Amino acid sequence: MTVASTNSPVAALLVELRRDGGEPLHRQIETAVRDGIRAGRLRQGSAMPPTRAIAADLGVSRGVVVEAYQQLVAEGYLTSRTGGYTQVAMGAEAAAAPAPPVRRKPRIDFGYGRADVTHFPRAAWLRSIRTVLTDAPSERFGYLSGHGMPELREALAEYLNRVRGTSARPENVVICNGYAQGSALLIQVLAAAGARRLAVEDPSSGDDARPVAEGLGLEVVGVPVDADGIQAAALERSGADAVILTPSHQWPTGGVLTARSRVAVLRWARRSGALVIEDDYDAEYRYDRTPIGAIQGLAPDLVAYAGSASKTLAPGLRIGWLVVPAHLSAAVAAAKVAADRGSPAIDQLAFADFVRRGEFDRHLRRMRPLYRRRRDALLFALDRKLPDFEATGRAAGQHLVAWLPPDLSEAAVTAAAARYDVGVYGVSPYRLSSAGRGGLIFGYASLSERTIVEGVDLLATAVAELRG
Amino acid sequence: MTVASTNSPVAALLVELRRDGGEPLHRQIETAVRDGIRAGRLRQGSAMPPTRAIAADLGVSRGVVVEAYQQLVAEGYLTSRTGGYTQVAMGAEAAAAPAPPVRRKPRIDFGYGRADVTHFPRAAWLRSIRTVLTDAPSERFGYLSGHGMPELREALAEYLNRVRGTSARPENVVICNGYAQGSALLIQVLAAAGARRLAVEDPSSGDDARPVAEGLGLEVVGVPVDADGIQAAALERSGADAVILTPSHQWPTGGVLTARSRVAVLRWARRSGALVIEDDYDAEYRYDRTPIGAIQGLAPDLVAYAGSASKTLAPGLRIGWLVVPAHLSAAVAAAKVAADRGSPAIDQLAFADFVRRGEFDRHLRRMRPLYRRRRDALLFALDRKLPDFEATGRAAGQHLVAWLPPDLSEAAVTAAAARYDVGVYGVSPYRLSSAGRGGLIFGYASLSERTIVEGVDLLATAVAELRG
Repeated sequence: MTVASTNSPVAALLVELRRDGGEPLHRQIETAVRDGIRAGRLRQGSAMPPTRAIAADLGVSRGVVVEAYQQLVAEGYLTSRTGGYTQVAMGAEAAAAPAPPVRRKPRIDFGYGRADVTHFPRAAWLRSIRTVLTDAPSERFGYLSGHGMPELREALAEYLNRVRGTSARPENVVICNGYAQGSALLIQVLAAAGARRLAVEDPSSGDDARPVAEGLGLEVVGVPVDADGIQAAALERSGADAVILTPSHQWPTGGVLTARSRVAVLRWARRSGALVIEDDYDAEYRYDRTPIGAIQGLAPDLVAYAGSASKTLAPGLRIGWLVVPAHLSAAVAAAKVAADRGSPAIDQLAFADFVRRGEFDRHLRRMRPLYRRRRDALLFALDRKLPDFEATGRAAGQHLVAWLPPDLSEAAVTAAAARYDVGVYGVSPYRLSSAGRGGLIFGYASLSERTIVEGVDLLATAVAELRG
Repeated sequence: MTVASTNSPVAALLVELRRDGGEPLHRQIETAVRDGIRAGRLRQGSAMPPTRAIAADLGVSRGVVVEAYQQLVAEGYLTSRTGGYTQVAMGAEAAAAPAPPVRRKPRIDFGYGRADVTHFPRAAWLRSIRTVLTDAPSERFGYLSGHGMPELREALAEYLNRVRGTSARPENVVICNGYAQGSALLIQVLAAAGARRLAVEDPSSGDDARPVAEGLGLEVVGVPVDADGIQAAALERSGADAVILTPSHQWPTGGVLTARSRVAVLRWARRSGALVIEDDYDAEYRYDRTPIGAIQGLAPDLVAYAGSASKTLAPGLRIGWLVVPAHLSAAVAAAKVAADRGSPAIDQLAFADFVRRGEFDRHLRRMRPLYRRRRDALLFALDRKLPDFEATGRAAGQHLVAWLPPDLSEAAVTAAAARYDVGVYGVSPYRLSSAGRGGLIFGYASLSERTIVEGVDLLATAVAELRG
């Protein structure tokens, strides 16, 4: 019914009352009044017309309007005044919303951290989900333990011990939503135990742990890395209560921590009571030799191991895991409960099934040669087109670093590349100290070989222009 | 091959080298040595036998053993000494693990917070997951926005505006892993903005927000509730920067915040610049009348609305949502990114599909009469067997409170019930002040009607004994 009268503010709001038996009439009136108040068409404090008048305007029984008014009074939109009239309440009003910001990606983007999700094993994952939804007992969907699902902790302990040389027991595994949350939980536990200073590699990926640590009042100190990873002697001088390490493939420079340094780091940790947090972020992708086993396997009481499915399957899964020293296991699980009451049940059970059935191994076997070919294409193109860029950290992972010759600055090269719609990224933003050689981080995992070659070609053109 | 010689410590560790072409021989040796070091069978600092001797013992070429040793040296298990011999490194050792603690549930447990997950809509959920895994573009599985998936934010805004009377825009929705994380994100944002004091209802569920707030240095103050929810006048005197409210169904006492109090709370919030956090924890289950609309709908710029699928679908999903004032939207999304880089992608997309296809509404329609019958069974049994227990908060949700007559204490009744293997829980642990009437919280959502009746029977017997 179209409302003809414009005398009534409510009738003015109601274009049409639907009488198809769907939504009750009083609910339609309520909605119209709420919308009117929010949009500012019904001003705060203004009197509402008598129910009798509205009912006549709309051609409904008065009881329908009374019901709507009562509901809106109960919700606080309207106020019932002594004297029998009703007005728009003073608290009720509309909200404004800003437009979300937009950031454009370059056409060819060597940005790091983009696993090739086009190869996500959808069919196998669906099979695991179906298995869980068919077989899992209902209580598995209830509230969760902070440690995570026993099935997944067992599957991961077996997998990590086999593939990464860890010494993991299921009871010391804590499932989390990726590395960022995992490191945050560890830092929270450390802070609660009185830790004051956290050492990180310099350069390193500062965006995960640093704000968390500083937010909890910890001082964050950088310890220099060289071609072999963190400088153990500098770590010893740091006075830190914990250190975050990427021993298998230093991020971003790609160094592998030497055996001597591993032992020195652990000796320091034992002597000073410090915790080593091992970020094993891309260990599954190693191209030129057997992966170096995790340092956690050497001293499970001193090292908290952190891994995730973000680089191997997809970041969107938000599945990560910690293997923590036995004496920290309960505290880390409690921190996980405090953070979010545990990770999603179905995902955990599905991943356990996926690992147990060998699908995870299979997926890694499929992806390794793919990434290797992309790395080879990048190395070959750099070598041919930019021979004075010195590529390092090439043996593993989904990125490498190319150190710049002395005549080029990171800022100049990244700006020049951007003009060709190519995204390359400097090492400097990851340095805690200001000093250090200029270098570019090339993520290659999500780019085709053809795109990689084209990107380096364009970069070389940009660099040639820079050099005049 | 079974190793006969026991002269070599390594050979003693190796029961069998498998020569089926599966795992390479050097890897098998590495594993055996690692295990031996961890188990303490190879002591730190002890000399390893020469590679030549091991090779002879095991019947393999010396190169195989050299390769294994080199790997173990690289990993830090072994140390290569000048003079050519190799020893077990000093850092390497085994870990001990404690047994996890066990807590027994009573046979009939009226514990709150247990939605009936046996009715989780497995087939419909699987359908949504299949749709996502078939249709979603790959980039959806990459890194995520802190706000969450646009599909889910749109579906939820539509659902909440329709069913809960909110004024939600998709751009102000933030997806999180359940209410606990959602409230933590809000408190973090408040603390960063300089908030000093958080008001909560007294009694209330303290285990979610309180430790987070206190951990961030906020003072937490209780504001008394009466039969109509929080006392607005007391809130005005609290000097708080924010308040957490359960206006639709106060937890645990079950009061519904009156329209007058709603307006008073919002007026206070506007005048003092405070934020109202609305915990709409069980609004979907209301039995005796139309649900009261969310207070957020009255003042979306003053109220942060929080809901979750824990009570409606299953806690194990870990899906929750916030609708925040526009000016807080970016900060809350940033806090979510800092916490865990966003909620799992596939779950979000599946839930969006589930809501959009009307499955969520359908599930709620199926569950409502079920819970209602359980509530009725509980009310009837209490009325018959324990007529001087005064049940309140019965109109909605998955629990109610029964106030105790003056001659009974919570402690005495819960202990007496426990002797009959019945779990009932006092209100007192949820009080911030010490004063207050004794009462018991009865969660009934996951118990059959028969079990509810049996539980109340046993409780009545226990109470009769108490009264001697």
